[in-house]
Amino acid sequence: MIVLGVDPGSRITGYGLIEKTGSDIVCLGSGHISSPGNTPFYHRIHHIFLSMVDIMRQFKPEEMAVEEVFYAKNVKSSLKLGHARGAVMIAAVHCGVKIFEYSPLEIKKAVVGYGRATKKQVRAMIKMILRLTYEPGLDTSDALAAAICHANWTRLHPNPKAK
Amino acid sequence: MIVLGVDPGSRITGYGLIEKTGSDIVCLGSGHISSPGNTPFYHRIHHIFLSMVDIMRQFKPEEMAVEEVFYAKNVKSSLKLGHARGAVMIAAVHCGVKIFEYSPLEIKKAVVGYGRATKKQVRAMIKMILRLTYEPGLDTSDALAAAICHANWTRLHPNPKAK
Repeated sequence: MIVLGVDPGSRITGYGLIEKTGSDIVCLGSGHISSPGNTPFYHRIHHIFLSMVDIMRQFKPEEMAVEEVFYAKNVKSSLKLGHARGAVMIAAVHCGVKIFEYSPLEIKKAVVGYGRATKKQVRAMIKMILRLTYEPGLDTSDALAAAICHANWTRLHPNPKAK
Repeated sequence: MIVLGVDPGSRITGYGLIEKTGSDIVCLGSGHISSPGNTPFYHRIHHIFLSMVDIMRQFKPEEMAVEEVFYAKNVKSSLKLGHARGAVMIAAVHCGVKIFEYSPLEIKKAVVGYGRATKKQVRAMIKMILRLTYEPGLDTSDALAAAICHANWTRLHPNPKAK
């Protein structure tokens, strides 16, 4: 099963694809979506949508994992994040990819073993679990962490229900 | 020139299309997009995107007007609103429709004449300006108000710049 993990953001959206074969997990691809600094906001959001559709068509994931959002700095930043998250979600529904959401705590627990791990600790574990030979950006490792969390959860619950 | 006005919301998204011919403004169509109560959130958002694309393809507006958002009840509701607004914006960029944003104050001033008008006062004015023979929903009249605000603004500024 191929799982796509996404860490949405209006500036940078990280993504990562993993494939689970038995107990082995490999990374099929990862990266981030961003636009030049002077790109109007709505073009950024549209670019996220188009890029996500491209990625889904290329890798054909069956399921997508994304972090649940409970808080943001303020109403304005959560509104912006909502636009970016909307773009990712619309792309998933558009491509028939099932969406699963996990809390930051669940994701960190699944990857590092405890819920208060830093982003750098998450990245270090992601590099080890996936045997990456490069240093992914923190948005990319967060995306891969969501994918791994889902892969572990699915292993425990062989017939997951889309949240 | 055909202008599409939209009032995005994750439960109900109002829309209205107006055509300006000289100083005359007529309503070409209006309504709202919603999904059955038990529809999962992401399917609602995707439905908004698809419906907006359909509406834009049918009426071929050149420009879209939408209310700026400055506040929301809380972070959770602004995040949800962001998803819905993202769906509307992605559809507009997708269909090559230019996006213009106006503050609630600007919209109310343009339609009713003062910025603290109620939604019902806005609707009453919308009915009069567009000579509607029916009572539109408040989301629909808010969408039409944004469109009229933009039409007035464009009349004053013949070469508007997309915000």
